[in-house]
Order: sequence, then C-alpha cells, then structure tokens
Amino acid sequence: MATKEEQPQVLENKEEPKEDGELPLVVVLRPKNFNLPLEDRLQSHFHLLDPNDSPDESTESFLSHHAHSARALLCVGLTPLTADTLGLLPSLELVVGSSAGVEHIDLHECRRRGIRVTGASAAFSEDAADYAVALLIDVLRRISAVDRFVRGRLWPVKGEHPLGFKLGGKRVGIVGLGNIGSQIAKRLVAFGCSIAYNSRKKKPSVPFPYYANVWDLAANSDVLIVCCALTEDTHHIINRDVMTALGKEGVIINIGRGPLVDEKELVQFLVRGEIGGAGLDVFENEPDVPKELFKLDNVVLSPHCAVVTLESFEALQDLVMANLKAFFSNKPLVSLVQSE
Amino acid sequence: MATKEEQPQVLENKEEPKEDGELPLVVVLRPKNFNLPLEDRLQSHFHLLDPNDSPDESTESFLSHHAHSARALLCVGLTPLTADTLGLLPSLELVVGSSAGVEHIDLHECRRRGIRVTGASAAFSEDAADYAVALLIDVLRRISAVDRFVRGRLWPVKGEHPLGFKLGGKRVGIVGLGNIGSQIAKRLVAFGCSIAYNSRKKKPSVPFPYYANVWDLAANSDVLIVCCALTEDTHHIINRDVMTALGKEGVIINIGRGPLVDEKELVQFLVRGEIGGAGLDVFENEPDVPKELFKLDNVVLSPHCAVVTLESFEALQDLVMANLKAFFSNKPLVSLVQSE
Repeated sequence: MATKEEQPQVLENKEEPKEDGELPLVVVLRPKNFNLPLEDRLQSHFHLLDPNDSPDESTESFLSHHAHSARALLCVGLTPLTADTLGLLPSLELVVGSSAGVEHIDLHECRRRGIRVTGASAAFSEDAADYAVALLIDVLRRISAVDRFVRGRLWPVKGEHPLGFKLGGKRVGIVGLGNIGSQIAKRLVAFGCSIAYNSRKKKPSVPFPYYANVWDLAANSDVLIVCCALTEDTHHIINRDVMTALGKEGVIINIGRGPLVDEKELVQFLVRGEIGGAGLDVFENEPDVPKELFKLDNVVLSPHCAVVTLESFEALQDLVMANLKAFFSNKPLVSLVQSE
Repeated sequence: MATKEEQPQVLENKEEPKEDGELPLVVVLRPKNFNLPLEDRLQSHFHLLDPNDSPDESTESFLSHHAHSARALLCVGLTPLTADTLGLLPSLELVVGSSAGVEHIDLHECRRRGIRVTGASAAFSEDAADYAVALLIDVLRRISAVDRFVRGRLWPVKGEHPLGFKLGGKRVGIVGLGNIGSQIAKRLVAFGCSIAYNSRKKKPSVPFPYYANVWDLAANSDVLIVCCALTEDTHHIINRDVMTALGKEGVIINIGRGPLVDEKELVQFLVRGEIGGAGLDVFENEPDVPKELFKLDNVVLSPHCAVVTLESFEALQDLVMANLKAFFSNKPLVSLVQSE
C-alpha cells in the first residue's frame, strides 16, 4: 500500500538518471568554444545531440542525420537559430533560449511552425537592473572617472575632481518596461527618481506615466535607460531626434543591445557636448568600441556583461532545466516568450 | 489696524537686507583658498566676521579684537574648531557646521560651554547613500575595472572579463545607522539585500537586526558599509579581527572617514586575498592612497567626494541659512547635532 512516507521516494525516482535510450532528445546549439556549464545536469535527464561532438560533420549534416525526431532544442548564448536550421528539425516543438534577449532566434519562423520559445531574461533581470542603476550613478557621479583620477595619482596634484550630479529627483525614462525595466524602476524609486516609460503598449498595472513614442519620453526625461528587445521596430530607436529631445544634460544608459542606439550619432553628441553622458554595456560592433569615447570622462564603458554574474549563471541553469522538464512532462513552460 | 493682508508685508520686511550695523554678527572660519559660495546670501542677513578678510592679522588676533560679542560661528568644510579658538569667543552660543561629519569641532568644549552645534549631514545624506550603493555595485560587478578593460582596448584581445557577483541576496551590515546609513538601507532593500546594523544604541523604530558590536555584525554579513561618525570610540572600528570575521568573500565600503578603518590591515587583507574587495571614498592620509591598491581590480578608489554634488551644494546653502535664521529668531534649529 502506498503510504505518505513512500511518496518522496517515488518523486525522487523521477529525478534519477534514466537509461540513455529512454531519455528525451534535446538538440544543443552552442558556440564552439563555449562549454556548457550545466552539461552534466542535462545529461542526467536528456539525451543531448550536440553538433560540436561530431567535429568531422557539418552542423547541417549532423542535424539532418541525427535530430529528425528531436522535439526540443537548447540555444546557448547568442548562437543564431535561422529558418534554415529550423528546417532541418521537422519535429521541433520547443526552443529553450539561454540569453536575456531572443533576437538571434527566428521568432517569425517559430511562430509560423507553432514552435514555442522560452527566454531567460528572468534569470538575468535583477543583475541587469543592478548594472543599469550602477552605470547611471557612475555616469552622474563620475565614479569610474574618479577611480582613474586616483589611480593616475592625480589627487595629490590636482586636488578636487569636478563635482558630479545628484541622482535623486532625476526624471528617468525607461525604454522597454519588461522584466529588466520593471526591476530598474523599483530600484530607482528608492533613490527618489521619478519614472516614466515607453513600450509597445501601455501596461495596465503600472503606476508610471506612459509615452507612446520615445521622442516624447526623451523630451520629458533627464535620463533614458534602454532595455527593450532588439527588433526591426526598435533598431536605432534612440536616434538623433531622440538625443536632441533628451538635451544637453541628458544621460543615456544602454544595457539592451548596441543597435538600439544610433551609435555614430551618440558619439557625435557626446564629443560635441550635446548630451550629458552615457553608460554603455553594449555596442553596435562588439567588441569594437568607438575610440572617440575612450577620452571622455562622462562615459562609462562596459564589455556586454550587465546580465552576467556567477550567481545568475546558477539561476540560468535552473531555468533551462525547469523549462525542459516542464515541456517533457506537459506542464506550463516557466518563461515562455510571448510572440506578437 | 493690522489686517491679514498686511502680514505678508511684515514678513517680507524681515527678509530684506538691513543696514549692516543692525545685522547679527556671524564669525566665518574657512580654509584660506575656499570661497564661500553663499557669501552674498549670507551678507544680506548677517554681518560676516572673516579672519581671511584681514590677511595682515592672525586669526587669533582678529577674533580677539572683533568677535567678542559674536553669538554665532559658521565653520566651513573641515576647518578645525579647537577649544583654544572657542576660548576667543566668549559670547558664542551657536556653531553652524557645513560638512556631513563634525569631528573637526571640539564638541566636548561646546557641550561644556552650552554652545549648540548644527551639522549638515541631512544636505548630503542622499548623495552619500547613492555613492555608497554605487561603490558596492562597482566592487561586486567590477564596473570601474571593466571600464579600464575596455579603455585599455583589451576587450577584442581577451574576450570576456571575469564575472562579478550579484548584489541581490547579499547580507549588508551598516556601521552607523544615522541619516546616511538609513538612506543606504532604504536603497539596498530595493535591490533585495538583507540589512543589519551596528550603532551606539539600538534604534527602537528600525526593523533591521541590531548588533551591539561590529565583530558580530561582520561575522553575519557579506558586506560592511562604514558610515558612522569618527570619534575616539570608532577610530579603527574596522580592525583586523573585524576583517577576519567578514571573511574572504567579504566587501568593505567606506564613505565615512579614513581612520574608521585600519588602512594598513585592509591593504594587507586585500593584497593577500583575505577579503573580497573594497570601495573606498576616504583614506587615513588623504590625498595619499596606499599604492598597493592601484593594481587591484576588486577595489574602487575615490577622492573623498561621496557627499558632494552640484545639487547638494545648493541644499547645503539652504540648510546653513535656515539654521542661522532660526537661531537669530529664537526658533528651533534645523539640524542640531545631538551630543551625548
């Protein structure tokens, strides 16, 4: 007779490794040099089909020969997932993304074929929000610049460093109020900032003023924080007109994707002093950073690392596992990307 | 007959410049090279006695000859105000400080003579709190270090920068929960940190756990933020034992005063990797910074500028004016320092 005491035993059995032949197939697409930190955990539950394990075969050939019946694919980092690749996977029903954004995945093709896509922005949103806030205070208060000033042994020589600006009271416009943008808003409220936002649609449950276009948001903000998804509609959403509307004291923080901002224009605005400063974690042609920025003290530069901490890697692994397990046990996906 | 309509007129007269002979005397003690930004505003309301205006006379001689009847003194910045100087001012009843801390003022002598002292930490507390939070995220997420990495053109060469640590979930111990410490706590709660504190006494209205000694606080914290006043009791409050209790992953942020931390020990702990990192706005022998720190990426260095922004200078001027006006119209002082 099944007693209450026996139930945990039954549940544990579900988590135990199965014979490889019984395990569900999961295709893994990853950059060649990128080791999958959760490989061991995945292999306890899934049979992984990784083209990198067959270096003599092309990815296309590997997928054609081995992945015909695979229903799930794990797309690691920003590995492009094109319609052509998807075409090699006729049984595919699920793409599990492991990055905050999903613009490297052909969402249109996924939608057309009814393939569901999960993202990982939930695992990264707190780190990304922390970073956006830190970049903003860094630009306003010149923290990276004063660190450079002290390390350059200029303090005893020059005395005081020019003063920075106060964060409290600043009007912050958030471009994209998703997971990350909402976390940014929560933090900046505690600093005494006033928040407004732009997104595709007004969010009914959000107390902050909504601007349907970014130009209006910029005209009513001291700071713009760019954290929306990169799509055809949002490419260069921060353009020359928006920068002009933001004005000479305005600050731009970009933790989204480089092409959300017209980088050439931004560099000109910064060099000519037509904008107050910028904190940039992302660039249009990474890892290339416009060299004009290197001499500016009102700019903080960062190598696309806003979303990543040691702790968020752990959270990411949990999220990837949770989505795959949910899929194969017909439960609701944990972080489904809502396609529109 | 005095009507209600006439009252504003009467009130306005109070604010209008008076003949200099009628104005109350205010002694100004300031560093020689420091111009008083609010001099014009002060001169509309007070007759200023500034030893710097008589360069041929010593400060002692000037005060002896001109300030015998002065009831109020404005102490600018960190100008020392000793018992000897106070002895030259027999009519003194009020010292208006213009800095966040007041350890440069002989509070014991002021208390003995019944001289009231006002501070200016309220004008600076938000800026200081913002800065403390930014230094903490900078140390955890290595923002100044990655800015250096990008400016040094290492991104294309080295690829990724080592990962940083997440702020959310960290146990932050605040040493000194006054104006500044309370503002820090408010901000860090929004980042998902848990807060505890040490101060001379448990604060009845504060929801955070209290530790009567700093060692216990350190042993139960991932981060220590030092923002208490510098007194004989708090000199080297962060000593070797406290650093050991904080542990290898621990982070120390100091926005208080340099001598709150045993700097030689801290340098050794950092160099030997026995502590996780530090964000330092203050040092024991400013502007000298231990050169061993210049090569460390887990350290953010700043030239004693946490409390100052362009905006806080405005707020400071308002606070100084408000305290002096309150005193001369027998109203409660705005920012009395509670001496114990």
